[in-house]
Amino acid sequence: MTENNNIRYSKKAGLLPGSLVHIGKKKAENIKLTLFSFNEEMYEENEIIDTVKMLPSLDDGKVKWLNMDGIHKIDVIESIGKYFGLHNLLLEDVLNTQHRPKIEYYEDHMLFTLKMLGINKSGNKIISEQISFVLGENYLISFQEQQGDIFEQIRDRIRNKKGKIRQKKADYLFYALIDAVVDNYYIIIEHFSEKVERIEQQVIDNPNEKTLKEIQLLKKQLIQLRKSISPLREAVSSIIKDETDFIEKENIKYLKDVYDHIIHLMDSIESQRDTVSGLKDLYISELSNRMNNTMKVLTIIATIFIPLTFIAGIYGMNFDNMPELHYKYGYPIAWGVMILITMGMVIYFKKKKWL
Amino acid sequence: MTENNNIRYSKKAGLLPGSLVHIGKKKAENIKLTLFSFNEEMYEENEIIDTVKMLPSLDDGKVKWLNMDGIHKIDVIESIGKYFGLHNLLLEDVLNTQHRPKIEYYEDHMLFTLKMLGINKSGNKIISEQISFVLGENYLISFQEQQGDIFEQIRDRIRNKKGKIRQKKADYLFYALIDAVVDNYYIIIEHFSEKVERIEQQVIDNPNEKTLKEIQLLKKQLIQLRKSISPLREAVSSIIKDETDFIEKENIKYLKDVYDHIIHLMDSIESQRDTVSGLKDLYISELSNRMNNTMKVLTIIATIFIPLTFIAGIYGMNFDNMPELHYKYGYPIAWGVMILITMGMVIYFKKKKWL
Amino acid sequence: MTENNNIRYSKKAGLLPGSLVHIGKKKAENIKLTLFSFNEEMYEENEIIDTVKMLPSLDDGKVKWLNMDGIHKIDVIESIGKYFGLHNLLLEDVLNTQHRPKIEYYEDHMLFTLKMLGINKSGNKIISEQISFVLGENYLISFQEQQGDIFEQIRDRIRNKKGKIRQKKADYLFYALIDAVVDNYYIIIEHFSEKVERIEQQVIDNPNEKTLKEIQLLKKQLIQLRKSISPLREAVSSIIKDETDFIEKENIKYLKDVYDHIIHLMDSIESQRDTVSGLKDLYISELSNRMNNTMKVLTIIATIFIPLTFIAGIYGMNFDNMPELHYKYGYPIAWGVMILITMGMVIYFKKKKWL
Amino acid sequence: MTENNNIRYSKKAGLLPGSLVHIGKKKAENIKLTLFSFNEEMYEENEIIDTVKMLPSLDDGKVKWLNMDGIHKIDVIESIGKYFGLHNLLLEDVLNTQHRPKIEYYEDHMLFTLKMLGINKSGNKIISEQISFVLGENYLISFQEQQGDIFEQIRDRIRNKKGKIRQKKADYLFYALIDAVVDNYYIIIEHFSEKVERIEQQVIDNPNEKTLKEIQLLKKQLIQLRKSISPLREAVSSIIKDETDFIEKENIKYLKDVYDHIIHLMDSIESQRDTVSGLKDLYISELSNRMNNTMKVLTIIATIFIPLTFIAGIYGMNFDNMPELHYKYGYPIAWGVMILITMGMVIYFKKKKWL
Amino acid sequence: MTENNNIRYSKKAGLLPGSLVHIGKKKAENIKLTLFSFNEEMYEENEIIDTVKMLPSLDDGKVKWLNMDGIHKIDVIESIGKYFGLHNLLLEDVLNTQHRPKIEYYEDHMLFTLKMLGINKSGNKIISEQISFVLGENYLISFQEQQGDIFEQIRDRIRNKKGKIRQKKADYLFYALIDAVVDNYYIIIEHFSEKVERIEQQVIDNPNEKTLKEIQLLKKQLIQLRKSISPLREAVSSIIKDETDFIEKENIKYLKDVYDHIIHLMDSIESQRDTVSGLKDLYISELSNRMNNTMKVLTIIATIFIPLTFIAGIYGMNFDNMPELHYKYGYPIAWGVMILITMGMVIYFKKKKWL
Repeated sequence: MTENNNIRYSKKAGLLPGSLVHIGKKKAENIKLTLFSFNEEMYEENEIIDTVKMLPSLDDGKVKWLNMDGIHKIDVIESIGKYFGLHNLLLEDVLNTQHRPKIEYYEDHMLFTLKMLGINKSGNKIISEQISFVLGENYLISFQEQQGDIFEQIRDRIRNKKGKIRQKKADYLFYALIDAVVDNYYIIIEHFSEKVERIEQQVIDNPNEKTLKEIQLLKKQLIQLRKSISPLREAVSSIIKDETDFIEKENIKYLKDVYDHIIHLMDSIESQRDTVSGLKDLYISELSNRMNNTMKVLTIIATIFIPLTFIAGIYGMNFDNMPELHYKYGYPIAWGVMILITMGMVIYFKKKKWL
Repeated sequence: MTENNNIRYSKKAGLLPGSLVHIGKKKAENIKLTLFSFNEEMYEENEIIDTVKMLPSLDDGKVKWLNMDGIHKIDVIESIGKYFGLHNLLLEDVLNTQHRPKIEYYEDHMLFTLKMLGINKSGNKIISEQISFVLGENYLISFQEQQGDIFEQIRDRIRNKKGKIRQKKADYLFYALIDAVVDNYYIIIEHFSEKVERIEQQVIDNPNEKTLKEIQLLKKQLIQLRKSISPLREAVSSIIKDETDFIEKENIKYLKDVYDHIIHLMDSIESQRDTVSGLKDLYISELSNRMNNTMKVLTIIATIFIPLTFIAGIYGMNFDNMPELHYKYGYPIAWGVMILITMGMVIYFKKKKWL
Repeated sequence: MTENNNIRYSKKAGLLPGSLVHIGKKKAENIKLTLFSFNEEMYEENEIIDTVKMLPSLDDGKVKWLNMDGIHKIDVIESIGKYFGLHNLLLEDVLNTQHRPKIEYYEDHMLFTLKMLGINKSGNKIISEQISFVLGENYLISFQEQQGDIFEQIRDRIRNKKGKIRQKKADYLFYALIDAVVDNYYIIIEHFSEKVERIEQQVIDNPNEKTLKEIQLLKKQLIQLRKSISPLREAVSSIIKDETDFIEKENIKYLKDVYDHIIHLMDSIESQRDTVSGLKDLYISELSNRMNNTMKVLTIIATIFIPLTFIAGIYGMNFDNMPELHYKYGYPIAWGVMILITMGMVIYFKKKKWL
Repeated sequence: MTENNNIRYSKKAGLLPGSLVHIGKKKAENIKLTLFSFNEEMYEENEIIDTVKMLPSLDDGKVKWLNMDGIHKIDVIESIGKYFGLHNLLLEDVLNTQHRPKIEYYEDHMLFTLKMLGINKSGNKIISEQISFVLGENYLISFQEQQGDIFEQIRDRIRNKKGKIRQKKADYLFYALIDAVVDNYYIIIEHFSEKVERIEQQVIDNPNEKTLKEIQLLKKQLIQLRKSISPLREAVSSIIKDETDFIEKENIKYLKDVYDHIIHLMDSIESQRDTVSGLKDLYISELSNRMNNTMKVLTIIATIFIPLTFIAGIYGMNFDNMPELHYKYGYPIAWGVMILITMGMVIYFKKKKWL
Repeated sequence: MTENNNIRYSKKAGLLPGSLVHIGKKKAENIKLTLFSFNEEMYEENEIIDTVKMLPSLDDGKVKWLNMDGIHKIDVIESIGKYFGLHNLLLEDVLNTQHRPKIEYYEDHMLFTLKMLGINKSGNKIISEQISFVLGENYLISFQEQQGDIFEQIRDRIRNKKGKIRQKKADYLFYALIDAVVDNYYIIIEHFSEKVERIEQQVIDNPNEKTLKEIQLLKKQLIQLRKSISPLREAVSSIIKDETDFIEKENIKYLKDVYDHIIHLMDSIESQRDTVSGLKDLYISELSNRMNNTMKVLTIIATIFIPLTFIAGIYGMNFDNMPELHYKYGYPIAWGVMILITMGMVIYFKKKKWL
C-alpha cells in the first residue's frame, strides 16, 4: 500500500553495477533543465535545450544552479555527469528513487538526496518524490522527479535580490533549498496531527471496524514518514560534524538550524505514534465496554422475565389438584408476586449500577 | 489538544531564512523591559522605555540583567540584538516559541532556551511558556512570553544582597534563574503524582469510559512533560561537559546540582508513566472482571430457572394420558422436585464460588 | 503510595541555592554523633556531645570515622562542615534525602550517597533511608537518617581487630560499609522473590481483583527498588573507572567485587520484573478462562433445555385437532424424544470436550 | 520449523577443535570445481577434476576465481586449503553451514560468509544456502552448498568483457558477487511484501484460526530473514571501516553502495515486522468485533421474545378467575400488546445502532 | 522456582569481606583433586590427596592442569590459593557459586567463571553448575561443583596426544575446556527448541490452563539461559579485545571462534523467546476463538428455539375466542410456520458462516 514497501528492483537485478537505469515510476513525461547563474551584481535564467552545447562554463566566478525536472532521460543525465565530472555511482544514486536520504562525499563535489513529501488530494496517501543535490565548489545541481516544486520562492529571492542569497555561494543556496523542503514537512505533520484528532473523536463517538483500519493506516504512514525523515537527520548531522569543505564554516550555523527543525519534527512524529498506539488501546477497550453493555441488556431482560415466565408456567400446569387455581384471588395474587419480583430485580440492578 | 502537537508554521513557511517573525500565540498585550545593574556595592533597577537611548553601557564593570516580558514586538528585539551584537539566527530562535529547549554557542555569548511550565486553573492542561536566556561576558538577557514569573525572589535577593548573588557574575545569576525554573517543575510533577493516585482510586472504585479517557490524557501530558524537560537535560549536560568560557569553573558545581534535579525529575516522570500504563491494564482487567460478573448473574438465573420452566412446561402439556396429573400429590411432588433442583444448583454454584 | 513519588519540595522552593534545609521526613527525634579513631595498634570510641570542642584533630595519623544518626539538626551539620572544610552544596546534598544515589568529587574529599532499604513490619512497603558518606584523606563521615543500622558488625571488627580493617585506611572502611549495605539488599530481593512466588500460586489457585492489585503494587515496588539501586551502579562504576585518589589502587578490587554484586542484584530485579509482568498476563488469561467456563455452563444448560421446553410448549397448545394428544402412548413417546435429544446434546458436548 | 532453530551439532560436539567436519544437510550429491582465470586481454574457464594437479599457479598475474559447488567432500577442501595456505579454522567455518554471516581476517586472505536466500516452490518456506568467499591478493574462492546459482550473469560479463570486471582485480569480482546476492534479497522481500498484503486482506475479509497461524509463521520468517541479513550489515560495515588491504581504496565506494542496499533491506524488514504485529492486533480486534456482533444477535432475539413469551405464558395459566380470557377482544388485544412491545424494542435497538 | 532467583546470602551477610565461605548448595559429598602435567613428550596424571605436600612445582616447564571436583572444603581451597599465590577475593569468587560468569585479571593469573548447564531427568528444569578457571603462566586450575563432567574427551586428547593440545600451553587447554562447555550449550538449546515446537502444537490442538503455565515456565527458563550465557559473551569478548598476556596472540583466533558460537547461541535464544511470546498471543486468541464458538452455539440454539417457543406459547393461551384453535388445519399450519422460521434462521446463519 505504501510505495516504499513495494520494491520492484527487477529492472536492475543482474545488470552490471554502475550501469545507469532509472528505478522508480516515471512521474513526468518531459524533462526540463533550467540554469540560474548569478552573483551579487547580476543574474541570468535560461532553459537548457541541448546539454552538450549549452552547459555553462564553470570558471566565470558566478554561482550556477542547474535544476532538472524529470530524471528518466538517461542520456541527458550522462552528459551532465560527463560535463561536471560526476562518478558513475553518483549518477546511479540520482536515478534510483528508492534510496534512503543520504550524503556521499566525492573528491570535488558531494551528493545529498532527500524526499520531498506531499499528501494526495483525497488526503489519505503520502506522495514521496526524491530530490538529489550535487554540490560543488561553485555550482549546485538539483534533480527532481517531476516539475512543480516549492522552490519558486527561492527563485524569486534570486531574481529580486532578496536576503543574502545573491551575496553567498552555492552552499548557501543548497541550505536554502533544504530548508524549504524541511519547512514543507511541517505541513505534512500538521495534516497528520489533525487526522489523529479526528480519529480520536471517532473512537470515542462511534468506533467501528473502519476506525481500526484507519488507525492501522495512520500507524503505517507515520512509520513511512519517520523512515523518510530519520535518515535525513543523520545526513545533516554528518555535514555539521564533518565540517566538510563544501560548506563554509560560517554557514554551518544555518544547517544547525535545519537540524533543530528535523529533531523537532522527529519528536512530533514520535508523539503522534504514541498517541496512535494509545488510540488502538482506547478502541479495544471501547469495544469491551460496548460488549459489556450488550451483556447487561441481555442479563437484565433475561433475569427479570425468566422467573416470571416460570411462575406463569407453574399455573399453566394441568394437575387436577392445584388449589391456587381455584382461589378467587389467585390470579391477582400471582400478578402481585410477579410485580414484587420485578421490583426486587430492578432495585438489585440499580444497586449494581446497571440501570 | 496539546499545544506542541498543533504546529502552525504557516506564518513563516517560505520566508527568507533569518527573517524575524514571532511564531506562537501572542500571550501578552504589552511588552515590558526591566534592567537590573549591580555589583557587590550597589544595584540599580530601571524600566526601559526607549531601547535606543536607554540601553546600558556594557563596560562599567557591573552585571546587567535585562528582562523582556512579551516578545511580539520585533523592532524592540531587533534593536536589542543590534545593541548586544546578537546573530540573526539567535533572534529567530528567541522569537520562535515552538523550539525544543536548547543551547547554542556564539562567539561572545550563548543562547539557552527552556520551557516554563504551569497548570491551568481547571487543572487539566499544561501551560508552557518559552524563556530564552542570552548570557554574555557581563550581561544576561532573559526573554519571556508574558509578564508574571517566578523570578521575583531572585530579584529580592539582588535588592537585599541575600546570598552570593551580588558578589558573583552574570553566570551565577543565569544559574539562579534556571534553578528557579527547575524547582518549579517539582510542583508540576507533584500535581501529576496526585492526579495519578486519584485516578488509580477511581479505576478500583468505579471504572467507566471517562476514566480511560483521563488515563489517555494523563499519558499524553506526561509525554509532553518529558518532551519539555528531556532536551533541557541535554542542554545543561552540554554546558557541564564543554566547560564553556561563559560559565566560570567554580560555578559548574551549581549547574551539576541543577543537572541532578533534572535527572531526578526525569526518573519521576518515567515512574509515573509506568504507573499510568499499569493503570490502563488495571482498567481493562477491571472491565473483564465486571463482564465476568455480569455473565455469572445471567448464568445463575438462567441455569436455575430454565430447567424449572421446562418441568412446568411438561405438566402444561395436554396429552390425554398423563397419569401424574391425576395423582393426588402430583402438584406438591412437582414443587418438591423443583425445589430440589434449585437447591442442587445453589450448592453447585457455591462450590464454584459464584455465590 | 511510594515515598519517592510524593515529592514535597515546598520547604525549599524559592530559597537561595546553597541554603541548608532538611528535606524529607524527620525520622529520628535525637541525633547521635559517634567517633571511631583507630590505627593498627589501638582504637578509641567516643560519643561527641559538643561538636565545636570535641571534633578530632585530623593530623594524628589515625583513621577517623564520624557517624551521625539523625540529620535534622542543621547547626551540627554546619559545624561539621566547617570543621572538615566541606562545600555548602555537599551539605545540602546530605540534608536532601530525596536525591538519587550519586558520587560527587570535591577537591580533598568526595561525597557518596546511597539508599539503605528495609521492609516494614507488615511486609508490604519498602522503607528507604539515605546514607551519605564523605570520604577524605584519613577520615570518613557517615550521615544516617535515624539510629539503628547494619554497621554494628563492622564496629565489632574494628573493636576486635578482625580482618584487615585496622591495618587499612579510611577507603577500606568506606568499602566495608558500602559492602554491608549492598549485602543487605539481598534480603530485600529475597523477600520479593518469595512474594512473587506466593502471588504466582494465588493467580493459579484463586485469582481475584485483589491479586491484580498486589501484582500492580509489586511492579511499582520493583521499579522503586531499581530506581534505588541502579544509580548506585553508576556511582560505583564511576569510582572504579576514574581511579580517584581517594581510593587506593589496591582497594579498587574490593569495589569491583561490590560492583559485581550490584550487577547481580540488577539482574535479579529484571528477572523478577519479567516474572511479574508474566503474572499479569497469566491473570488476564485466567480471567478469560473462567469467563469461558461460565459461558460453557450457560450454553450447556440453555442448549439442552430450550429445545425440550419447546416440545413441552408444542403439546401445551390448545388446537382442537392435535392427534398426538390422543394417542395412548403420546406422552411416553414425547418423553422418549426429549430423552433422545438430551442424550444427543450430551454426546455433542462430550465431543467438544465441554463436559 | 525454521532451519536455523533446529541446531544439530552432535556430529561435532566433543571433537578436537580444528577438526574438519561438514555441519549441515548434504544438499548436493556431487561436487563441482570451476576455475576462471582472466585479465584484461584473455580469460580461461576450466573444470577442475584433480585438485592436486590442476590447481592454478598463483603468480601468473591473472585473477583467479575458483568456485566450488557442494562442500561435503572434506579431502577436496583440505587440498584446496593446503594449496592456498588457508588456516584450519577458516576451513572449519566454510564447512559449518550454520554460522552467522561474518568476516574474518587472516594474514594474506580474508573469509567472508553470507547466506543466499530463496523461497521454496509452495512459497511458504525460506531456503537458506551458505556461500563462503576467500579473498586473497589475486584470487577469490567461493564455496557454495549446491550447484545452480545467481552468478551466471557475472560469468557472462567475464566471458564477454562487459563492464569493468576484466580490468579489475579479485576484489572487484568479490564485490560483484556480493552485490548479486544482495540484489537477490530484494526478490525475497518483495515476496513477503505481497504475502503481508494478502494476509491483511484476509484478516479484514474472513479472519479464522488459520490466519493467525499464517501471521505467526510470517513473523517467524521475518525474524529469520533479519537474522540472515543483519550480521551481513556488520560484516560489510567492518570492511568499509577497516579499509583492509584486500580491497583497493577506490573499490570501497562500491561496497558502500552494497551497504546502502543492505540498510534499505533492513528498513523494509522492520516496516514489515511492524505491519505484521499490527495485523495480529487487527485480527484480535476483528475477533472481538465478531463476538460483539454474535452477542447482539442473541440479545436482540432474546430481548424481544422473552417478554412476549411471558405474556403468552400469563394467558396460558389455568386460574378459574381470569376475566381477560373471557373478553371478546381479549385475544386481539393480547396480540396488540405484543406487537407494541416488539415495536418498542425495535426502536430501542435502532437507537442503540444495533439494527 | 529457578535456582538463581532464590538467593540465599544469609551465610555470608555481615561477615568480613574476603572471608571464605562456600555459598550455594553443597552438591558433592567428597572432593577430588586431579593433576595433569604434560608437555609434548610426556604426560602424568595424579590424584592429589594431601595438598600441602603433593602440589606440583611450577617451574619444570610442563603445563599443569589441576582440576578440583567439589568446592566445599575451604581449607583445601585455601592451601591451593596459598600455593599458587591467589588473591583472597579470587578464592571468594570461586566459592560463591551464585556469581554471574565473569573475568577478572590479577597480576600473574586471571580468573574466568562460567556456568555448566544441564537438564534434569524429567526434562523440566535447568541444572546449573559453576566452573571457575584460574589461568596462570603455565598452569590452569579448574574448580567444579561436583564430579562428572564433559571434559573427559579433552583428557583423552592429552593422554593420546590427539590434536595440538600437547604442543600448546595452558592457554590452549583453557580454550579447549571453554569450547567444550559452549558446545554443550547447543544440547540445551536443542532441548528447548523441541519443547517449544511441542507446546506450539499443543496450543493449536488443545490449549488449556496447563499450556499457559508451561509457556510461562519456558519463558522463565529462557531468561535464565540468557542470564547464564550473556555475561559469558562479555567475558570472552573482553579477553579478545584486551589481548591479555595470559593468552598467546595466535590463540586468540580460537577464542574468536568460541565467541562466534556464543553469539549464535544468543541469537537462537532470542528467536525462541520471540516464538514463546508469540505462543502466548496464539494461546490467548485461541481462547478468544473458543469463547466465540461457544457463544455461537448458544446464539444459534436460542435464536432458533425462542421464537418457536413463543408461537407454542401463543396457542397455549386460554382465551375463549381464538379462532385459529378451531380451524381444522390450525395445528399443521402452526407446524408449517415454525418450520419456515427455522429454515429462515438456518439460512441466515449459513450466510453469516456460523454453520
